[in-house]
Amino acid sequence: MAKQARAVQTWRSIVDAAASVFDDYGYERAAISEILRRAKVTKGALYFHFASKEAIAQAIMDEQTSTVEFEQEGSPLQSLVDGGQQFAFALRHNAMARAGTRLSIEGVFLGGPHPWGEWIDATARMLELGQERGEVFPQIDPMVSAKIIVASFTGIQLVSEADSGRADLREQVAEMWRHILPSIAHPGVIAHIKPEGRVDLAAQAREKAEREEQEARIAAEAKEAGSDPATDTGSRSGGAGLRGGGSGRGTRAGQAGDEGDEEPAGAGVAAAGGAA
Amino acid sequence: MAKQARAVQTWRSIVDAAASVFDDYGYERAAISEILRRAKVTKGALYFHFASKEAIAQAIMDEQTSTVEFEQEGSPLQSLVDGGQQFAFALRHNAMARAGTRLSIEGVFLGGPHPWGEWIDATARMLELGQERGEVFPQIDPMVSAKIIVASFTGIQLVSEADSGRADLREQVAEMWRHILPSIAHPGVIAHIKPEGRVDLAAQAREKAEREEQEARIAAEAKEAGSDPATDTGSRSGGAGLRGGGSGRGTRAGQAGDEGDEEPAGAGVAAAGGAA
Repeated sequence: MAKQARAVQTWRSIVDAAASVFDDYGYERAAISEILRRAKVTKGALYFHFASKEAIAQAIMDEQTSTVEFEQEGSPLQSLVDGGQQFAFALRHNAMARAGTRLSIEGVFLGGPHPWGEWIDATARMLELGQERGEVFPQIDPMVSAKIIVASFTGIQLVSEADSGRADLREQVAEMWRHILPSIAHPGVIAHIKPEGRVDLAAQAREKAEREEQEARIAAEAKEAGSDPATDTGSRSGGAGLRGGGSGRGTRAGQAGDEGDEEPAGAGVAAAGGAA
Repeated sequence: MAKQARAVQTWRSIVDAAASVFDDYGYERAAISEILRRAKVTKGALYFHFASKEAIAQAIMDEQTSTVEFEQEGSPLQSLVDGGQQFAFALRHNAMARAGTRLSIEGVFLGGPHPWGEWIDATARMLELGQERGEVFPQIDPMVSAKIIVASFTGIQLVSEADSGRADLREQVAEMWRHILPSIAHPGVIAHIKPEGRVDLAAQAREKAEREEQEARIAAEAKEAGSDPATDTGSRSGGAGLRGGGSGRGTRAGQAGDEGDEEPAGAGVAAAGGAA
């Protein structure tokens, strides 16, 4: 492996391991030694990339903010709702999102920099777009409403974590929108917004897991039979539609509970954007 | 002092000192030794009252919940708004409210019990009362809306802390109500609700500080002159109206910034209730 690619991989290993440690223990109790153990890197490698625990925490907060990209096509309000539900989904299935959120909140108490600035700016831009397209009331100040939305979301995911380990987060975020939309959008627009999000990310993740499992099975069968799996399209498309949710959840998807398979930070969002 | 009264005083000293330590350092970094130092009690006395740091934290979270009592007269929605603004004021001027809130949030990460149950129940009762009096839409589920309100408040005070050290908290909480009220109340009712709260707690605290300062001055003058201060009402009422906010804020009130004097947990609420 080239030197630069190896450095990128080491950086990635450290950030991923640190996310899982911060998610488990929070900033104060997170030990560098535990990050090293999980990342399987040396102390020297870690300090080559990061000057301090604080610097790793900052990298994770930056990663978290880049988890969601709002779909620019269609209804800006629906895209805003969808982005929030994608982040809510990431909070359930992704240590990076959880660690970033926990660090943001703990950072307030530790006197850190404002961790929600980028979220607020991105939300305000979608509200502005909503005003341009006639969805959002013209008298709304996008920055004022964006701050209320981001702040409310932060509190709602905290209460959902305390209530249900975030099991009810999708529904709680939908309730947040039902409570806020009447003050920012025309009733005729609200009737067309889906507060649970346009795409069922859980179902999507389950389908993806099933598809991957099936592709792996077909590849294995083809390898055994000595044929070329790329030409074997008939059995692939036929099987995928028939099998339903059962067997996929019993294997890989079973780990992540009722929302299906574990989902990497960007994948669900990119897929949702494509499907929208 | 009687044995029981002394025990109550010791308990109070420990809880007050612990609140200031938890407010400064959070749960993890709060040291029992620092609580002992600030409370000026022995280790034995502390462990006579509390089995552990966790038990002290629980006592502070219980104290915090009892900070606000909703006014039962007049508009239930306005009383709900007022109660939230009283708590917002307490967050700015009262270590007990700040420590209770910080411990509640940190407790979620530490897997503690749900810290917002009582707030949600009390809020739901006010929404029910609002339904009975025709202020709140009958189709609203009070528990669902109460959870969204309490969760949003929790997030909003966090973002306000990060943004401005809670200097803009009153206005941010008012914005929260402007965003939520249209989904739960009739427009005709909303027109009469003051989202900043019915009572200006800051002005009230300033007036109280000025009154106390003046009374102290009159008592001192009377003592010097050898007369009875209780009969000297003429100069008291005359002076209070003329002096304005300046000199009061320059002395005691100056410590607490732009909202006036430091206010004990219950006092502002009781005063607001009486004035309503």
